[in-house]
Amino acid sequence: MNIEMIEAAYGRISGVVRRTPLLNAPLLDEIAGRRVLVKPECLQLTGSFKFRGGMSALSALEPEARARGVIAFSSGNHAQGVALAAQRFGVPAVIIMPADAPEMKIANTRAYGAEVVLYDRAAGVDREELGAGIAEERGLTLVRPFDEPQVIAGQGTCGLEIAQQAAELGVTEGDVLACCGGGGLTSGIALALEAHAPGMRARSVEPEGYDDAARSLVSGRRERNATEAGGLCDAILTPSPGEITFPIMQRLCGPGLVVSDDEVLRAMALAFSHLKLVAEPGGAVALAAALFHGAELEGDTVIATISGGNVDAGVFAKALAHA
Amino acid sequence: MNIEMIEAAYGRISGVVRRTPLLNAPLLDEIAGRRVLVKPECLQLTGSFKFRGGMSALSALEPEARARGVIAFSSGNHAQGVALAAQRFGVPAVIIMPADAPEMKIANTRAYGAEVVLYDRAAGVDREELGAGIAEERGLTLVRPFDEPQVIAGQGTCGLEIAQQAAELGVTEGDVLACCGGGGLTSGIALALEAHAPGMRARSVEPEGYDDAARSLVSGRRERNATEAGGLCDAILTPSPGEITFPIMQRLCGPGLVVSDDEVLRAMALAFSHLKLVAEPGGAVALAAALFHGAELEGDTVIATISGGNVDAGVFAKALAHA
Repeated sequence: MNIEMIEAAYGRISGVVRRTPLLNAPLLDEIAGRRVLVKPECLQLTGSFKFRGGMSALSALEPEARARGVIAFSSGNHAQGVALAAQRFGVPAVIIMPADAPEMKIANTRAYGAEVVLYDRAAGVDREELGAGIAEERGLTLVRPFDEPQVIAGQGTCGLEIAQQAAELGVTEGDVLACCGGGGLTSGIALALEAHAPGMRARSVEPEGYDDAARSLVSGRRERNATEAGGLCDAILTPSPGEITFPIMQRLCGPGLVVSDDEVLRAMALAFSHLKLVAEPGGAVALAAALFHGAELEGDTVIATISGGNVDAGVFAKALAHA
Repeated sequence: MNIEMIEAAYGRISGVVRRTPLLNAPLLDEIAGRRVLVKPECLQLTGSFKFRGGMSALSALEPEARARGVIAFSSGNHAQGVALAAQRFGVPAVIIMPADAPEMKIANTRAYGAEVVLYDRAAGVDREELGAGIAEERGLTLVRPFDEPQVIAGQGTCGLEIAQQAAELGVTEGDVLACCGGGGLTSGIALALEAHAPGMRARSVEPEGYDDAARSLVSGRRERNATEAGGLCDAILTPSPGEITFPIMQRLCGPGLVVSDDEVLRAMALAFSHLKLVAEPGGAVALAAALFHGAELEGDTVIATISGGNVDAGVFAKALAHA
């Protein structure tokens, strides 16, 4: 996994994937006590950065393998990213999703033409076994959500854009906060910054109770969360950092940040008020850290990704009511 | 009022005003039955296109006059646009606002450093008289919300960007839908398209009951609405098209479009679901027309402005619950 793979991915996908802007709002700067720049991947096609990894992975496949189709496991954002990427290539996609994933994510994955197979997460179904059977039967290629070099390369294109856009604004130092599940986005951004913005540093941000990356960065080994289900921030509730992503994070990232659900809901409400953006809970953790954990950050400017915006209306209304 | 003034305004403000992207979502295209491109001015600084007009007007003032300060009448978006523009120039701004304007708009106008003077719209206070007294006393320059050439020139820069961005996508024909109050944005876009995208046509969109522009375009004279208060779409409830804006619209625009409040709320919910954008009611009328009035449009592609996103949480939650 290296910067050349990220640059090659950018070459393959840059005509299809949206170059999201770098936004700011004066009233957010006041709250944070420093300049806050926001990379809104909620504005990416499919409503999250995962379309970058999906397009990167599918565009890297051999044409024969791609034509047979792909399969993915996902609670929602990777699902949509792979589904739309497959639709763009005109190839089949099977997505294995937990039945309790947000309704919008299931509906949109189907709307992008994928075949969705639901499983009951609480019933202890072995999704890997379920998927392996389907994949073998149809000759589908598995696209892993984060521990897959071409997926990390795709997510890293977000980091390339951040490095370019920050430089255009004269920003060459400071922390770049990534919403962190398995670490695909975090490690991809870290590699891009190492090569193109060496004065900037990637930081993982997670919700309380699911802070496997932060604990792993302290202990130096891949720690696990007690549970994978039930949290507010469904998009980033992975059991532990990836085999490929964690060594990159360990080498390049600053200490992990951890935010509370209350801070996440307030960040969603402030993104609504001041950025006019819809952030999903898992997509708002980095903004929450930028706004409410300033003492743990370095530099006059902080860059926060909003990694996705696929949130059901009820949860969003709860965030607005909370604020 | 001409294209040279719009281009000059762009030269003055383009380093400060955000170049908003042109967005799309495959699932919106399916609903509309044609390609829908969205110009999200809710992502503009202050959350609406009005910052363009505010910056244009203040940057065009003589330095001595500007230093004394400015005054504006506005229910909210022009208020914020002028307030932030004045803050950027370090000069005072007094904004006369109705006491029943959305809370967020009043709070943000104050947060940008303006002195807000509230008046009771229902009590029949003559706001012009109120403002004239303050302006004379302090030597403030009035910045009108739409019937002011330098304000129209600023709003027209949105049209310049649309023409450029559409051309980059190979789009040279079709309707460009503008959320229409007094016609500053509509006429500014119309002039920009005339010069730079002559195959495209500006169309005004208004809510039912406040369709003064649509009726004026039919009758050929400036019609008035029965009332200015009480509607869902507070941002665009002006009594009639402007003296300067209407002749431009009459010369260049296609027939006006009129949408229902129900369509507005559904468009807000679809912008939430598929674009991850917060649109205020008055800012969603053009998207509503793009999605639900396809039979009245021409071309394979329609471009809809989302003119603003300054909506109180309660109204937004209502839109989400409605959909």
